[in-house]
Amino acid sequence: MLDVALLGTGGTMPLPGRWLSATLLRLQGRLVLFDCGEGTQIAMKLLGWGFRTLDALFVTHFHADHVAGLPGILFMVAHAGRTEPLDIYGPPGLERVVAALRVVVPHLPYEVQCHELSSAETVTVSKLEVRSLGVDHEVPCLAYAATLPRGRPFDPERARSLGVPLHLWQTLQRSYSVAWNGRRVEPDEVLGPPRRGIKVALVTDTRPTPALPAFVAGADLLICEGMYGDPADLPRAVERKHMLFREAALLAREGRVGELWLTHYSPSLLDPAAFLEEARRIFPRTVAGRDLQTKTLRYPE
Amino acid sequence: MLDVALLGTGGTMPLPGRWLSATLLRLQGRLVLFDCGEGTQIAMKLLGWGFRTLDALFVTHFHADHVAGLPGILFMVAHAGRTEPLDIYGPPGLERVVAALRVVVPHLPYEVQCHELSSAETVTVSKLEVRSLGVDHEVPCLAYAATLPRGRPFDPERARSLGVPLHLWQTLQRSYSVAWNGRRVEPDEVLGPPRRGIKVALVTDTRPTPALPAFVAGADLLICEGMYGDPADLPRAVERKHMLFREAALLAREGRVGELWLTHYSPSLLDPAAFLEEARRIFPRTVAGRDLQTKTLRYPE
Repeated sequence: MLDVALLGTGGTMPLPGRWLSATLLRLQGRLVLFDCGEGTQIAMKLLGWGFRTLDALFVTHFHADHVAGLPGILFMVAHAGRTEPLDIYGPPGLERVVAALRVVVPHLPYEVQCHELSSAETVTVSKLEVRSLGVDHEVPCLAYAATLPRGRPFDPERARSLGVPLHLWQTLQRSYSVAWNGRRVEPDEVLGPPRRGIKVALVTDTRPTPALPAFVAGADLLICEGMYGDPADLPRAVERKHMLFREAALLAREGRVGELWLTHYSPSLLDPAAFLEEARRIFPRTVAGRDLQTKTLRYPE
Repeated sequence: MLDVALLGTGGTMPLPGRWLSATLLRLQGRLVLFDCGEGTQIAMKLLGWGFRTLDALFVTHFHADHVAGLPGILFMVAHAGRTEPLDIYGPPGLERVVAALRVVVPHLPYEVQCHELSSAETVTVSKLEVRSLGVDHEVPCLAYAATLPRGRPFDPERARSLGVPLHLWQTLQRSYSVAWNGRRVEPDEVLGPPRRGIKVALVTDTRPTPALPAFVAGADLLICEGMYGDPADLPRAVERKHMLFREAALLAREGRVGELWLTHYSPSLLDPAAFLEEARRIFPRTVAGRDLQTKTLRYPE
């Protein structure tokens, strides 16, 4: 089970009533945040999932609308009582940007560990496997795909018939072989075929790229930038390295994702829902993301 | 005429429904901002006085709740089309802090000029004379007093009887002597006694200090921190270098100001109005500041 919250849906600047784009994942009470523009800490307060268990922050790129809220997030995590290290991941340059922004929050009761990521790296945080992909924006920028893996199904009948003692079952479930009284059982004897986990893909800010469909492929939820709704804005989207609603919908279709949430709206886009129809013709399960929209993703039965 | 807007009233952290403490002054369409915590740009949008004519920003100190919104303000001023330089004033260290925070807004279409101020300096911005005073906080911190000076009254009867040609009146009003046809008139011949201007004093964050009453003396409006309302919070106020409502009221009384607006409330202070009574016993014209509260100050007749 993985909870997803879209903290805000704005691009470029925060507006009254529209926080900047940022996404929070919650897994067994632990939090992982993606981006933190100005005001993200207020959206997190409104959401109410807390700050102390924030284990990691992933930054897509270093434009202010994606990272200027970092001092506030670091402060709030400290204020909430965290003492364990906090990991921050982002494109090359991360260390320098974090050090600079920390000039207004120099003293923290926990360690901040920066990890600069290249494209196509995978890190594991709070049991989530987060993979990066370099995308096509004005500055170095990473898309992320977070996967909560699922173990292979365990067959208790089979374990019982093999005489495996109960206290060794969990070891087998974790794909380790077990041995007792001179006997030995391999995981393959009691585990079924691999199962897909839960996957959330986050794509912002970028033009469509050839690698994106495979990167988001099979995601239960794709949260993707839709800077502009009106197809007439294509030249602006191309120039500023952003996407139209229809381009996000095409990506969702090509990647065969479960659902698409649009976000990172231009401040000029006052009513995103007005441009949904065309996107839904391309990919019916398109949702115009709203601030503080949440969803719980579960393993399919 | 000087317009004053209290953009927010929060201390330490922005809250849903309470922006961080910052004050905006407007004078003939020009703007001067004091402090900019996270979210101040959103409060400015709600206020609606614009961004392009922001001529100067005064920072009291470098705690995040007073300056972390700087990137957003700089971005909005650029977005509004400003090309003239923007002056930023603050305590020593300003240059380093501004350079660090600009890492997320490196390219601006205008120049940012930093001016590090000592205590008891006066600078003139948009016709406002702004004076600094070093106060008593955990880090170097300045209080500010902004005065809009008023010219001496001009006596048109007297100018007429001296035969001063009409086109020279404005020169005399500006306290310059004039000469024509071999005649000469000095300003003292047509100008009355000096008159006080409009004064707004901004005091945050600090403990009360011996120099403060004289610094705020005669202000039409004193905007002063009241971190805590409950007198039982005095030890916290002393430890964290903040003020109680009653201490702000004592300062207002000693400084014989026109009106006191309390601001910079602790996040724990949910209902500031509940603690007003004691402050009003000390200084009756005490107001519990509210976000986006505005007032127009005029010269007395």
